Amino acid sequence: MNQEHNQYVEKFVEMVKDVRSCMLITNEKNAENISGRPMSISKVDEGGNMWFFTKASSYKVDEIEENKKVSISITNESSNNYLMIHGTATLVNDKGKMKELWSSILKAWFPLGLDDPDMTLIKVTPSEVNYWDSSSSKMVVLFNMLKAIVTGKVYEEGEHGKINL
Amino acid sequence: MNQEHNQYVEKFVEMVKDVRSCMLITNEKNAENISGRPMSISKVDEGGNMWFFTKASSYKVDEIEENKKVSISITNESSNNYLMIHGTATLVNDKGKMKELWSSILKAWFPLGLDDPDMTLIKVTPSEVNYWDSSSSKMVVLFNMLKAIVTGKVYEEGEHGKINL
Repeated sequence: MNQEHNQYVEKFVEMVKDVRSCMLITNEKNAENISGRPMSISKVDEGGNMWFFTKASSYKVDEIEENKKVSISITNESSNNYLMIHGTATLVNDKGKMKELWSSILKAWFPLGLDDPDMTLIKVTPSEVNYWDSSSSKMVVLFNMLKAIVTGKVYEEGEHGKINL
Repeated sequence: MNQEHNQYVEKFVEMVKDVRSCMLITNEKNAENISGRPMSISKVDEGGNMWFFTKASSYKVDEIEENKKVSISITNESSNNYLMIHGTATLVNDKGKMKELWSSILKAWFPLGLDDPDMTLIKVTPSEVNYWDSSSSKMVVLFNMLKAIVTGKVYEEGEHGKINL
């Protein structure tokens, strides 16, 4: 089971390793007003956790403090990567981790670099990964090796893979 | 005001005219379980309405019947197109409209073509469009001509445009 779990995580990490950005969706508790904003993905670690830098004073941080349940949407036409991820967000205020994940491209948001006091990390731990994969423009969904591990509720088309992490 | 509205709609249509697919997010009322699936965009008409073909028997149709409030997420890295759209979905069971929007690529989902009895249209009328635009990898948000028309609540970064349609 644990080995199986690791296999799913590996597959997930492989799937998103070249994805640079996604839509981070918060405030799901208040269905009148879910909110989404594009985020640059700093890293997807080997445990499948997705790491983001953000301003500690940002509104999304307040939303996460109120409700840790978030979703991540990826629609990448050029790589035919389509994922809907549900998970739990954690705010990580760890300078060591920030240093590990820092990249110069982040200066666009944080000109002061790692000395910026208004900086925190968001770690999203996926609990459910829905993906659609295609090698053609038809968006036919691959089953191949993943067919066997499809779990959870059956979706209408029965054609997309769902990995429960 | 009406002219201004048309200007926003035109800008929106221009923004998404080359986007082929998006994530359609439903079931926002039940915050425990928003659901998203990639959809091929058949057309964005001059009124800003987004049109999709779908199976009438699909689960998303049930969800829309229960709650018409939907969101659409677009994260297109190659074109640097990032949009979060909130709107209202309507189910349109109009064969004439289907004929107008039909394209042979849809045969991947509907091998029977327009004769398929299990076919309906989803029309999403955006009420709010949040977009982020970038000409560089930094995802700096353009203000230019749109700066003047930014409305609604101020977001944390104050750097993305929001068009209220």
